[in-house]
Amino acid sequence: MIKLRIHNKEEEWKKEYDSFADRNKSVLSLARKGEEEYKDSQGWLDTKEWAGEERIRRLEMLAADIRQNADVFVLIGVGGSNNAARSVIKALQLPGTPEIVYAGNTLSAHALNRTLEKLEGKSIYINCIAKNFETLEPGAAFRVLRKYLHERYGSKAAERIIATGTAGSSLEKLCEDNGYMFLEFPDNIGGRYTAISNVGLLPMAVAGIDIRELVRGANDMQKELHEEDAPGNIAYQYASLRNFFYNRGYRIEMLACFEPRFKYFFKWWIQLFAESEGKESKGIFPVAGEYSEELHSVGQFLQDGPPIIFETFLDIKERQDSFLMESDGKKDYFDYLDGKDFWYINKEAYKATVTAHSRKMPCFTLEIDRLDAYHFGQLFYFFQFACYLSCKLMGVNAFDQPGVEAYKGWMFKALGKQG
Amino acid sequence: MIKLRIHNKEEEWKKEYDSFADRNKSVLSLARKGEEEYKDSQGWLDTKEWAGEERIRRLEMLAADIRQNADVFVLIGVGGSNNAARSVIKALQLPGTPEIVYAGNTLSAHALNRTLEKLEGKSIYINCIAKNFETLEPGAAFRVLRKYLHERYGSKAAERIIATGTAGSSLEKLCEDNGYMFLEFPDNIGGRYTAISNVGLLPMAVAGIDIRELVRGANDMQKELHEEDAPGNIAYQYASLRNFFYNRGYRIEMLACFEPRFKYFFKWWIQLFAESEGKESKGIFPVAGEYSEELHSVGQFLQDGPPIIFETFLDIKERQDSFLMESDGKKDYFDYLDGKDFWYINKEAYKATVTAHSRKMPCFTLEIDRLDAYHFGQLFYFFQFACYLSCKLMGVNAFDQPGVEAYKGWMFKALGKQG
Repeated sequence: MIKLRIHNKEEEWKKEYDSFADRNKSVLSLARKGEEEYKDSQGWLDTKEWAGEERIRRLEMLAADIRQNADVFVLIGVGGSNNAARSVIKALQLPGTPEIVYAGNTLSAHALNRTLEKLEGKSIYINCIAKNFETLEPGAAFRVLRKYLHERYGSKAAERIIATGTAGSSLEKLCEDNGYMFLEFPDNIGGRYTAISNVGLLPMAVAGIDIRELVRGANDMQKELHEEDAPGNIAYQYASLRNFFYNRGYRIEMLACFEPRFKYFFKWWIQLFAESEGKESKGIFPVAGEYSEELHSVGQFLQDGPPIIFETFLDIKERQDSFLMESDGKKDYFDYLDGKDFWYINKEAYKATVTAHSRKMPCFTLEIDRLDAYHFGQLFYFFQFACYLSCKLMGVNAFDQPGVEAYKGWMFKALGKQG
Repeated sequence: MIKLRIHNKEEEWKKEYDSFADRNKSVLSLARKGEEEYKDSQGWLDTKEWAGEERIRRLEMLAADIRQNADVFVLIGVGGSNNAARSVIKALQLPGTPEIVYAGNTLSAHALNRTLEKLEGKSIYINCIAKNFETLEPGAAFRVLRKYLHERYGSKAAERIIATGTAGSSLEKLCEDNGYMFLEFPDNIGGRYTAISNVGLLPMAVAGIDIRELVRGANDMQKELHEEDAPGNIAYQYASLRNFFYNRGYRIEMLACFEPRFKYFFKWWIQLFAESEGKESKGIFPVAGEYSEELHSVGQFLQDGPPIIFETFLDIKERQDSFLMESDGKKDYFDYLDGKDFWYINKEAYKATVTAHSRKMPCFTLEIDRLDAYHFGQLFYFFQFACYLSCKLMGVNAFDQPGVEAYKGWMFKALGKQG
């Protein structure tokens, strides 16, 4: 379950906001129906389409097999092809499961050399994830890594290579030619919306994540967001708040959390919103804060800088971890912490930050009950749907990314790519 | 050596910019002299003050001793107390040196439990770095970790504990009471400007970084920036460019680099600028991009979003790493990469990005010859001095952080801290 809270005291803007949200609520019903013009990009709207029972079972079996045989599982992919999986793995990977190594997300020779060093002497599986298989980073890394596997395992290498691409793509052809296992990348979902599909779920399952629970969380959120009317619909309210403050001159959203395990979830969220909204000279620039650490970095700016930032906190309701602060009998002027749990101290830091920041800027919290696979599923579906709504309110296409082609064009030209 | 390049074609703004830079150049001579009103915060302005020969030698000896005895060196600190060291260690740590573990930069019980697990069975040294020793995170973590060391090593624990704080602080008193080694935190430098002092240099030296070279790089940069007149002074030009575009409505600076080893340097840079500039409702919000990965995330927004972002690239001139792309004989439609080195491909991605982005927004490059200790020293001094100049141009105090107190006040109150 996710709850949305607005922290600012009753102020003049609340009435105007209610009116704004009420005025625009037709976007909610439009989005729920699935719009004809975006139907090539809405395969995620019904979770069942790409994460039904049969697919989950197949992924669970495949992952169990890999877990039994692999020391290291290399996820080759960039952006939408690795951010969702990495989010969950970073937060919830089970001990004793294969180490997940990320490749194909950089062109750095240094990083590639270090990655190959890590693989020496280990049992390796690789999964190359690339929708159209034209992106340079995963294409190049896949070449290097499959060559490495062929050299190490000879004719047995193919058993350790899995590729995830769209049906009919050159990646599928490459798999057919060489006997690699091929998984389907949904052809009707753009990378950044593919958390709940083969793209996100296989690497998660290899890391021991309960993907069935994760999909259940997404399903429950889908149901909620497709049933609740605008006033009680958290995705619609979140999307409306964003747009309301955007219209008032706010240009940056800070997503903040006091639990460092959200580190890579932030990256997923940043791509989702930056790539979906940032077009036609519009968009709220998404940034993320690992608190309390980054209160010692950007905190000053948030509190006293220009009023162009609003803040969304991710908060976890239940105590899942505990560490009791005891005195060691030495006089250190931190006596006021004696007998308090770190979980409690951290929570007080969150509350104090909300109190201080909400006097300066719009502050919201999205509260989840606990950090687990189910709630990651909820968060993925929630943000995807909210992002779609937010783009509709802003009047931009949530599913294309025409601006990414600009630098690619110059790069392909310089590298002599044909066509 | 650092070079500054402006990538945008000759445009109307260049004349106005030259006039802006010329009109304000008096800030350069003011800053170089060291202003009376900031003299309590300018101990970094002359590198010799806190990183002279004698201090370097002492740190080298101490670090050699720790390297010989430690498996793990725990750096307890947050913000200015760990960002500089972490930047360099992440990029340049030598193999075979102690693992550097970071603590006291979060209040997460989960993170603290994981940290303690990592220490089991290893030979541990800890260095708590805290200027006034009132900050909660390092204070709490230091308590936990010194207790852990006392339980493991008994009366020998004190030999493994080093604290870095200002002379006369409660941290010094704690060291005297318990026989811990005490190092001086410069009393006339704020945390974010302490890279070139005991704060940054001890952990770097433990990780095998050549701190003598790093200090030499900082010294050389100091000489350059204190001698060059405004038109040829890269720090002044960079600071002027920032302010010129700030005055034209740009609100975000993206610091971007195609080498992932700069990851933690970005964090250092973000704190430096956010905390120095973000006040009196002014400031450019600093964000960082790990390219090429994040071109697949924020690239769309940069290219097509609102024109409020300018971009500064960090580029490395020399090839330091190499990986030749060879065909594996399989048809994969990436033939255009055959025989090319990743270093070259990555460089072409950088050039293409500059070409595409400079048509949209102001784009600059700061080019260093190579990624080594010497150039980290150059970068630290360069950015510190440029930040000071930038704040002067913006009309804010580069050295205070009054806004950070707001949430701390509420937090201390909730936790029952006296005084």
